[in-house]
Amino acid sequence: MNNQALYKISYGLYVVSSKKGEKINGQIANTVFQITSEPPTLAVSINRNNLTWEYIKDSGIFTASILRRDTPLPFIGNFGFKSGRDINKFEKIGYKTGSTGAPVVTDNTVAYMEARVKNTFDMGTHTIFVGEVVDADVLSGEPVMTYEYYHEVKRGTTPKSAPSYIKKEDK
Amino acid sequence: MNNQALYKISYGLYVVSSKKGEKINGQIANTVFQITSEPPTLAVSINRNNLTWEYIKDSGIFTASILRRDTPLPFIGNFGFKSGRDINKFEKIGYKTGSTGAPVVTDNTVAYMEARVKNTFDMGTHTIFVGEVVDADVLSGEPVMTYEYYHEVKRGTTPKSAPSYIKKEDK
Repeated sequence: MNNQALYKISYGLYVVSSKKGEKINGQIANTVFQITSEPPTLAVSINRNNLTWEYIKDSGIFTASILRRDTPLPFIGNFGFKSGRDINKFEKIGYKTGSTGAPVVTDNTVAYMEARVKNTFDMGTHTIFVGEVVDADVLSGEPVMTYEYYHEVKRGTTPKSAPSYIKKEDK
Repeated sequence: MNNQALYKISYGLYVVSSKKGEKINGQIANTVFQITSEPPTLAVSINRNNLTWEYIKDSGIFTASILRRDTPLPFIGNFGFKSGRDINKFEKIGYKTGSTGAPVVTDNTVAYMEARVKNTFDMGTHTIFVGEVVDADVLSGEPVMTYEYYHEVKRGTTPKSAPSYIKKEDK
């Protein structure tokens, strides 16, 4: 089996955010996808060790911001390679409180969706949360960041906690 | 709510195939994504009215071929806008029988995965099948087809049965 094949799947790059009481957090995700159009539902796959997982479990709400192609690497690093257990990821980030009460990152964002969790599917290391989209908007006409662009042009890397992590020896 | 936001999510373009007894079928899908890396699992979202849905339900097997960016529109039309109930979609198509016994489309294919269904999640109009990847290979180093490229450059359209279908009045 050649694991490289899985690396050819196309993804975007997103900040998935949630809240727990007054606390907010967000993380980089690449697995965000629409499941049905009527009603519009959105699925995200989140590692159960991540703080955002705990927040989504608690509040039953998540938002997803679709990142612009020119999103700077430090911005991605802030959400992707740090933990909200150690820092306040939103400290220097432009965001708004969405209609669900969860944070919506607006910096470097082409469009966003807010969703209320309808189904939670435990998949071992990761959980698929499927939510009904309750609000959404487009903020910019800029091209979006694809996972391929992030890797090939931006030379970005993937943390171990991502669904699509590939061990170095497999690359 | 601006449904256009959902249209900014990134996808690839795939032929998802399966079998039922001696019969084989496949269809275009854009929602194919990895859920976990250990073990490697793959999710697909399939409309329950589609013949491929019935075949995956029956055999518990699916394959996904990741299409090349230069895949001709008639090839996509054969798998995306026709039903295996009316025609044999594989009649003039290069494919092989995978290690699971299901067909793997090899024409216009950059890479493919074969998966055995572990979980089936009913989402109304669509079902999410999550399978453990049991075989995979890369066939070509060509760039892959993204859903955005299919729409914007190839001027491809989306059938009503797709998860990401947007009504004309919403566009």
